Amino acid sequence: MTEIDRMLEANTQWAERFPGSRPVAPARKVAVVACMDSRMPLFPLLGLEVGDAHVIRNAGGVVTDDTLRSLTISQHLLGTREVVLVHHTDCGMQKTDDQGLADLVEETTGHRPPWTGRTFTDLDADVRESMEILRGTPYLLSHEVRGTVYDVATGQLREIV
Amino acid sequence: MTEIDRMLEANTQWAERFPGSRPVAPARKVAVVACMDSRMPLFPLLGLEVGDAHVIRNAGGVVTDDTLRSLTISQHLLGTREVVLVHHTDCGMQKTDDQGLADLVEETTGHRPPWTGRTFTDLDADVRESMEILRGTPYLLSHEVRGTVYDVATGQLREIV
Repeated sequence: MTEIDRMLEANTQWAERFPGSRPVAPARKVAVVACMDSRMPLFPLLGLEVGDAHVIRNAGGVVTDDTLRSLTISQHLLGTREVVLVHHTDCGMQKTDDQGLADLVEETTGHRPPWTGRTFTDLDADVRESMEILRGTPYLLSHEVRGTVYDVATGQLREIV
Repeated sequence: MTEIDRMLEANTQWAERFPGSRPVAPARKVAVVACMDSRMPLFPLLGLEVGDAHVIRNAGGVVTDDTLRSLTISQHLLGTREVVLVHHTDCGMQKTDDQGLADLVEETTGHRPPWTGRTFTDLDADVRESMEILRGTPYLLSHEVRGTVYDVATGQLREIV
């Protein structure tokens, strides 16, 4: 049985206790932008219920063109008005640099990726940089953004100001 | 109290029942690529535990350069070897088209976004297109990918083949 088969089986149990449908627009008008890290189940971690908030995740939780595309759709089409960033300690993005990542991929597959890895060294600085980018993006409707770092060893969030 | 204040308060409760630390590499070696939709708490929906799988999410759950960046890091640096796509019914991305979205953003803010919205009309076709892109990306280590659509009215996943 592959992992997706296990997930499909687990989903039948979820569907049996399904809490019911909700509107497409997030009830709490928030979009969360977080790292893809496997140790962050964002709904319980942030006290979110089904239907509360958009959840955008990528490697590092960094602000890319795709993050901005998603936030624009979130705000313009679906009414969110706050952004919450969630980076975390012990991030895979701190374990290499952009050059090292591109070299590794090229050595292993023979193909150099056409994008930049967006690795970082200073966690707090990267959260601040992400906040700055969002505050300076003219086509967003709201620039209300706050940033946090999640400690994967304790489960605690720390706000970055 | 803003929404993030509520989240920080909820997080103190999460930290009190924190299940303990896990390694950075996902235990089940899976990366999930899903839509940002607020009605999909992916951990319980797929039967995932803390530390099991990477979770990549954007508007539509579409495969963009940023998705490929995240999956490359997931596979090359953190050992995942399967990808599971999760699109869903009643998606905001089906409510407009790329031109309409860009026009709306420009009319409201005076700025036209520099990217394409990646809206779609046919849900199953978009899942299949995403699978094709992933299977044809030469710098990924694994091309094991399966696609699903989540029904937001019933909680059930349906595999797309």
